[in-house]
Amino acid sequence: MNIYIPKGYRFAGVHCGLKSDSKLLDLSLIVSDIPAVAAGVFTPNLVCGAPVQVDRSRVPGQGFRAVVANSRCANACTGEQGICDAEEMAALAAQSVGGNTQQGLVMSTGVIGTLLPMDKIRNGIKTAAEKLTASETGFLNAAQGIMTTDTVEKYVTKSLTLKNGETITLAGICKGAAMIAPKLATMLAVIVTDAALEPSVAQKLLQNSAEDSFNCISVDGHTSTSDILLLLANGAAQSIPLHGDNFELFAKTLRELCIELAVKIPEDGEGASHLITIDIEGCKTRNDAKIIARKIAEDALVKTAICGADPNWGRIVSASGTAGVSYDPKKISLKLNGFELFKNGEPLPFDKKTVVTSIRNNRTTHILLTFVEGDSGIRFWTTDLTSEYVRLNSDYTT
Amino acid sequence: MNIYIPKGYRFAGVHCGLKSDSKLLDLSLIVSDIPAVAAGVFTPNLVCGAPVQVDRSRVPGQGFRAVVANSRCANACTGEQGICDAEEMAALAAQSVGGNTQQGLVMSTGVIGTLLPMDKIRNGIKTAAEKLTASETGFLNAAQGIMTTDTVEKYVTKSLTLKNGETITLAGICKGAAMIAPKLATMLAVIVTDAALEPSVAQKLLQNSAEDSFNCISVDGHTSTSDILLLLANGAAQSIPLHGDNFELFAKTLRELCIELAVKIPEDGEGASHLITIDIEGCKTRNDAKIIARKIAEDALVKTAICGADPNWGRIVSASGTAGVSYDPKKISLKLNGFELFKNGEPLPFDKKTVVTSIRNNRTTHILLTFVEGDSGIRFWTTDLTSEYVRLNSDYTT
Repeated sequence: MNIYIPKGYRFAGVHCGLKSDSKLLDLSLIVSDIPAVAAGVFTPNLVCGAPVQVDRSRVPGQGFRAVVANSRCANACTGEQGICDAEEMAALAAQSVGGNTQQGLVMSTGVIGTLLPMDKIRNGIKTAAEKLTASETGFLNAAQGIMTTDTVEKYVTKSLTLKNGETITLAGICKGAAMIAPKLATMLAVIVTDAALEPSVAQKLLQNSAEDSFNCISVDGHTSTSDILLLLANGAAQSIPLHGDNFELFAKTLRELCIELAVKIPEDGEGASHLITIDIEGCKTRNDAKIIARKIAEDALVKTAICGADPNWGRIVSASGTAGVSYDPKKISLKLNGFELFKNGEPLPFDKKTVVTSIRNNRTTHILLTFVEGDSGIRFWTTDLTSEYVRLNSDYTT
Repeated sequence: MNIYIPKGYRFAGVHCGLKSDSKLLDLSLIVSDIPAVAAGVFTPNLVCGAPVQVDRSRVPGQGFRAVVANSRCANACTGEQGICDAEEMAALAAQSVGGNTQQGLVMSTGVIGTLLPMDKIRNGIKTAAEKLTASETGFLNAAQGIMTTDTVEKYVTKSLTLKNGETITLAGICKGAAMIAPKLATMLAVIVTDAALEPSVAQKLLQNSAEDSFNCISVDGHTSTSDILLLLANGAAQSIPLHGDNFELFAKTLRELCIELAVKIPEDGEGASHLITIDIEGCKTRNDAKIIARKIAEDALVKTAICGADPNWGRIVSASGTAGVSYDPKKISLKLNGFELFKNGEPLPFDKKTVVTSIRNNRTTHILLTFVEGDSGIRFWTTDLTSEYVRLNSDYTT
């Protein structure tokens, strides 16, 4: 897969001592050589980390030079000291490339309720600043520095040519494998582009794209204290802001990038043996579809059934009935990996062995639940629930 | 523990071939020798089993003679045939003791989406009717006949003496170990008493008691298609309906019985290694407290942490922040097994080994989360989430 790096950005990922294994990167620095517009989407959790509080007060906005991110410590539930630490991180990151204290943004992921070891963080930012590079290696290192329980670094890049011949590029990294509804592993993502956007436009585009991507995934239904999705647009590839057809093309590309990036999270869900794609069709509103999809996605019984390659479709239908959305239960139909198991409220005979084999032999399981209430639907992604997930999450801090 | 059997009731539990092991009982019959008042509380799941639909149309009411219950097949998502089968079960049960077709009630638990093997059921009811007895053995057999993944039969009995010297007795059985928010193991419970109650009064008493008991437990957050809680009151011990102080005493006893019975479900939660008691204090309303308690109770990260004896209190605080209830996050305090870990939004230093040992060595873990928004609170019960839960639920139908 080709990696496209947008103009005017440099990247680094270093080991600064947060992770015990010195081969693992634990701090990432992303800088724009020219001031960039920034937009952000944040966790709705009322208990939110210090970085969320700091970034939320700054974006959307312009003039940003740096994003610094660390793993192993979420800097959440850390009181006033936590806020000071987050502000210092952001300031050091911006200053490392000649910016001022307000030109930085910050993201943290890891354990809740412990203070950042600021000595390590300060040294880390300094080392990272010395290693900044516009190369693929720098980009991949930045993607690795934010990994917690992720088994692979996650990134998507896209390049598109506008009608006027200009080429603009988008590059996104993210992390997350649990505490995902977008887990104490937390969802962090940064997308950088050399397109030119106004702050309010960037914010709206990012929110729309998040709605169909990062807001449609769930590993364990826990919305972290620390979820952050940032977009930086420095305009380095353009003379004038995007508009008209070019704008539409960019919006479509950003949405696709967000979906591809977001799906990488449940694909790498902690201990997961299946990615589950849930399509809901025929609802009155998209929101109804989303509520039902999320209820199924977060149901332990549905998730353990898929783990066991068990076509126990009754659990899926039952979960949908508890979503709080009104519909006619006599008109529901369900397909699992394309096999029709339930139609208009009545069970259909099916060859259990065939369906079991289909679930067992495919990494992705597809659930299609159809209602007759309207024309709205949604696609949602989740993981199965395995013994390995329990093992991983039974000893995270100790 | 003494077992008290209310006057005028007989019980049986038999093996009729639903479970493959012929030593395991799978059908229960409970009869009142005189017509009884019946009240019921049912699953709010929009997709509800045929027994739920049949019973809901009949209670609250009077003149009931029999309750029949089976395990292994929930008779849910079974269309019109399922309704016919449920009605036939209820009718056969009532007729087995000389009642008419409308004097029976029915409950089913097990896999969703398969039709009941009615030949086995018919024979089972016939055999059970021949074995009806007012003895402890009959009562315990009835408790065993509804077990699915339960490891023990669950029952609570209570006897109380009224001011006029009359002794009245309550005896309850229940089942459930997963698909509990009250799992496709489903929650079923029957309470019988020889007190005299009017139908509407019985219904109100049962609803109130359920609110503090069966509605405050969760194993995996899945509200089954088939939850049923029934109360039969035949008045065999009384000349006139309960009133005044006697009524209050009965109401209090019924509530206590419901709580004791309900807690047996998460105590026996599938694969559980800990019962978790969650106390929420200082909320604006009881409903706010309940929403927060349920969010914590159903959080995979909280549940796996307790499984691993990990005092990862940040997950508890984080879960509370996603409940959708408004509160000041800077004023939350948390105790775990009595150890104060978080106070007024700031982490407190604590000896991790001591807390780990406390969680590991106690079957019950106690979480106390305190807010400063008001005077309302709630107690809620759940289980930890273990690899054994995943194993049990990965191969339930296959």
